[in-house]
Amino acid sequence: MSIAVSLPANDKTEWWCKMLRDLMPDWDIYPINQVPDPDSITYSVVWRPATGAMTPFRNLKAIVSLGAGIDHVLADKELPQDVPIIRTVGTDLTQRMKEYIALHVLRHHRELPQIQANQAAHLWDQIIVPPAPARRVGIMGLGNLGAAAAQLLAQIGFDVVGWSRSAKTIEGVTIYSGDEAFGAFLEGTEILVCLLPLTESTLGILNADTFNRLKRGACVINAARGSHMVDSDLIDALGSGQISGATLDVFHVEPLPKDHPFWDHPRITVTPHVASMIDAPTGSKIVAKNIRAFEDAGTVADLADAKRGY
Amino acid sequence: MSIAVSLPANDKTEWWCKMLRDLMPDWDIYPINQVPDPDSITYSVVWRPATGAMTPFRNLKAIVSLGAGIDHVLADKELPQDVPIIRTVGTDLTQRMKEYIALHVLRHHRELPQIQANQAAHLWDQIIVPPAPARRVGIMGLGNLGAAAAQLLAQIGFDVVGWSRSAKTIEGVTIYSGDEAFGAFLEGTEILVCLLPLTESTLGILNADTFNRLKRGACVINAARGSHMVDSDLIDALGSGQISGATLDVFHVEPLPKDHPFWDHPRITVTPHVASMIDAPTGSKIVAKNIRAFEDAGTVADLADAKRGY
Repeated sequence: MSIAVSLPANDKTEWWCKMLRDLMPDWDIYPINQVPDPDSITYSVVWRPATGAMTPFRNLKAIVSLGAGIDHVLADKELPQDVPIIRTVGTDLTQRMKEYIALHVLRHHRELPQIQANQAAHLWDQIIVPPAPARRVGIMGLGNLGAAAAQLLAQIGFDVVGWSRSAKTIEGVTIYSGDEAFGAFLEGTEILVCLLPLTESTLGILNADTFNRLKRGACVINAARGSHMVDSDLIDALGSGQISGATLDVFHVEPLPKDHPFWDHPRITVTPHVASMIDAPTGSKIVAKNIRAFEDAGTVADLADAKRGY
Repeated sequence: MSIAVSLPANDKTEWWCKMLRDLMPDWDIYPINQVPDPDSITYSVVWRPATGAMTPFRNLKAIVSLGAGIDHVLADKELPQDVPIIRTVGTDLTQRMKEYIALHVLRHHRELPQIQANQAAHLWDQIIVPPAPARRVGIMGLGNLGAAAAQLLAQIGFDVVGWSRSAKTIEGVTIYSGDEAFGAFLEGTEILVCLLPLTESTLGILNADTFNRLKRGACVINAARGSHMVDSDLIDALGSGQISGATLDVFHVEPLPKDHPFWDHPRITVTPHVASMIDAPTGSKIVAKNIRAFEDAGTVADLADAKRGY
């Protein structure tokens, strides 16, 4: 009946412990470095746990990932095998992500960066862009977040196509599934959005070959994981004009190092991993509910598949 | 069976004439300064016609405004009375406007201007904003454009309130109507959007009194007419912090004069009247359809009410 909490920053670990203690007064909740008896720990609640951090907990029933992705858990090469991983997915996370995607797709669609550059030059230039139904937006990854984003973009009026490993149905969205359909999905796409899980097969998928299949001058938005992107390929594609702009929320190293070329690139918008933040007051309610449900039923809807990687 | 076309720029007048001739080959279509016989003119197609420009046309059946508003027609103090005015409202215009409003509401909601300022300083600061359901957006004006924008904002998830002269119903939107409800509408609004028609009673409605009733730090988006705004009141409200940001698409004088203080204001985004552009290829189809319908039936759905002013 004990829970170990592990986040990279001690103050955030304390914040989550406090929130969870309020919601689960019958449980003992410890920061991972203050656990008195490792054998008492039956759940861990983690974001980017250190390598081997789960090893002392021999009685773990489940590991709770503080986010929709589990790549940051699987990155621990000493992770105990066969311990289920529970994803944390709430309506707030989905809401925030779809807002972010709608904002940045619209911003590229309406050429706002150019309009703002014109403002700086006191230049009145009435750029006419096509209406959204004439603009193709491609969403890579159609999990909870990708599906919600695709649906909202279709409601706004965009010509939305989606790509995922397995076949799905989303109203107003044309869906391509499987590796063999990837080329057809990319063809004609003018704004590409990555919301894929990070797995061995999606690592580095935002690369020169992918960019070259898009419509010339396309924009790219990455709100998934930094490792989906081959940074140097993006810089090259922006240089050649094959890609005309990028909005990036995730990076190989976070916070993005002060001297990284993305900060000053005129065609890259850097946002500090805020597309869909999980905050402790909201997130702890989801975590508490999932742990209770797992105790009762031995499973939850948001169980990840470690072998599949998401 | 003749049509006179009048836009402020000669090249645009020619472009519209060409488009209309292709669509209405049985009509004679002239730029206003090349009309051979004023008595033959039964329709005029205009954007900001010169004072007295309609006077020579004694057989006018209707004036077509190249936009949703008719204030630019009524501004002609010598305008022949009792000639019906047909508004040009198409799905494209509505589509473009709702995209613009969604983009700029989301941009203020997600504090993108601050995030971009942080990028310029290489600063990784994870600003957490409330999700859209906790953010109140107020739409002034619920005609075709305002209603479509309100509905999309509600679909995105915002807490949307609307204000209009007469009572209306829009799914997911709380509506206040009439002058007596204006204060209640403004109270608690964090992002205010103006899509009102310009009339004597809405002229200067974006003023200090209105700003002071909003939640402190609110943002303002004006995509209606420049004359809705009291420019000096906006500058003062931005200075005091009562208003934290503004996006303006319309101005008292357009193009916005090179030396206007809005261009360089750090909290004002200037867009060059592009929220909802009517382009000749699309707009001419709507105009041709409306003129034919008016010929056949003596009225059209988009007939304006000159006495009401919109």
